[in-house]
Amino acid sequence: MSLLVVGSVAFDSVRTPHGHADSILGGAATYFAVAASWLTPVRVVAVVGEDFSEQHLSVFASRGIDTTGLERAAGKTFRWQGQYVGDMNEARTLDTQLNVFERFAPKIPASYLASEYVFLGNIDPVLQLHVREQLPSTRLVGLDTMNYWIRGKLEALKKTLAAVDVLLVNEGEARMLSGEWNLTKAAAAIQKMGPRSVVVKRGEHGVSLFTAGSIFSAPGYPLDQVQDPTGAGDTFAGGFMGHLARTGDLSEPNLRRAVVYGSVLASFAVEEFGLSRLLRLTPQEIEARFREFKTLTHFDV
Amino acid sequence: MSLLVVGSVAFDSVRTPHGHADSILGGAATYFAVAASWLTPVRVVAVVGEDFSEQHLSVFASRGIDTTGLERAAGKTFRWQGQYVGDMNEARTLDTQLNVFERFAPKIPASYLASEYVFLGNIDPVLQLHVREQLPSTRLVGLDTMNYWIRGKLEALKKTLAAVDVLLVNEGEARMLSGEWNLTKAAAAIQKMGPRSVVVKRGEHGVSLFTAGSIFSAPGYPLDQVQDPTGAGDTFAGGFMGHLARTGDLSEPNLRRAVVYGSVLASFAVEEFGLSRLLRLTPQEIEARFREFKTLTHFDV
Repeated sequence: MSLLVVGSVAFDSVRTPHGHADSILGGAATYFAVAASWLTPVRVVAVVGEDFSEQHLSVFASRGIDTTGLERAAGKTFRWQGQYVGDMNEARTLDTQLNVFERFAPKIPASYLASEYVFLGNIDPVLQLHVREQLPSTRLVGLDTMNYWIRGKLEALKKTLAAVDVLLVNEGEARMLSGEWNLTKAAAAIQKMGPRSVVVKRGEHGVSLFTAGSIFSAPGYPLDQVQDPTGAGDTFAGGFMGHLARTGDLSEPNLRRAVVYGSVLASFAVEEFGLSRLLRLTPQEIEARFREFKTLTHFDV
Repeated sequence: MSLLVVGSVAFDSVRTPHGHADSILGGAATYFAVAASWLTPVRVVAVVGEDFSEQHLSVFASRGIDTTGLERAAGKTFRWQGQYVGDMNEARTLDTQLNVFERFAPKIPASYLASEYVFLGNIDPVLQLHVREQLPSTRLVGLDTMNYWIRGKLEALKKTLAAVDVLLVNEGEARMLSGEWNLTKAAAAIQKMGPRSVVVKRGEHGVSLFTAGSIFSAPGYPLDQVQDPTGAGDTFAGGFMGHLARTGDLSEPNLRRAVVYGSVLASFAVEEFGLSRLLRLTPQEIEARFREFKTLTHFDV
């Protein structure tokens, strides 16, 4: 089934201990869409500026991503500049220029309105809820957010949370949103706010999935080298939602497999700068690494 | 088979967000021995002072631990005072009084000399090697160390590493010892120093086991409340080594199960202050949580 993502498209400049890249195509919706495109058809709602070229557009086209909802506005595309040091678990933002993203008002094309699988990327929760309310046919809505909204727009965010099925956040965000240090308690508190399932991302330490009465933990994939962690969380979300959309199976065992597919896609993404590795994947590589996750975690009882 | 541990016995004073405990029995060898005692007979080599009472000794006796090698020296027992805040992943040491531990020179009783499974707790690597060389019949020697020795006695530590089978360290120690940020590279570098297997402990994020050509990752057990993380790493080591000693099976699949038993024991240890929870375990509880780890990590391929 088709999967709709609403979020940012950006130009990133990234410096890590292993090199740097300047003004490369990035943004949450981009990483999400490219990752998910390996599993299911994807539709994007985002905004870009006049500096967004045919060449940039061709990246989406090369993955068969529907860009009917990619709005072109007067001005420049969102730009982010960041740096990773040490264990690279956290980005240090050096510069953010929101540009056209500052006034992003997501418009859902008529051809998207029947979308059943929807991912609301990290934007103002008021806009997230507005998008969600325009989509009457959803089977699963995933949500991302960040500290900025938890701190500044908590009431709006709570309304949005009440209208979604899965929240995907990192540990710090789960703690801040719930007011609980303990992640099991944090997840339980968030589930009471609306989402049936909570996915807590722990960077290189893996991911935990909290559903009603069950917890699943997947480790991070052990990589020899992480070149660039940018977009790993969004790539995870793309793999997670992509697997659910392609299978249409929302059972708990399939949510677990979705977590592993998310982890697989994210593990590829960080191997190289930007989208490079994600763009030249093969379905065989994805399946092989899925099985490697089994080898990584299996023990006999 | 009997399992020998050499390390510290201490009196701990601990403060966490959930309470505090003063001058309770602790120390690496104590946590290790009590944990392992649920799986296999244990022998201890350690030193205590004149303030170590019959009541303290009875804790070891209650778990059937052989204390022939528990030396009583003039002076006071090692005392440690620490505090955990926030996510409790790291202890802040408030005070350390080495006391009799400062001049600890491990003496191996004749009745211990045939020990096949040995754990060299975190002491001066020169002493660790000295102990190791007195034990000609070992099938598996595990080693712990810390930043202090990596920084201050690296050459001695390298000699000790060359004479052991498994190194158990936390992430920071693995990085410092190898000079590699990436944990997969760090483990590979450490394996070249001697130990066939490297166990990297990640606190609440779980444990990774690096063996020749294979990696196994187990998550942390999701607990509603961690009262006191003191001794978790030593308890893990006790469960890990205890399972290997009781089974005598050093195959890679059994090393994986040993990692899970270590994680099981550690997850119990942190539920309450000090040794309380470990002392009133049952074999049934241990087996039940071992199966819960399977539920926690299983997904269908």
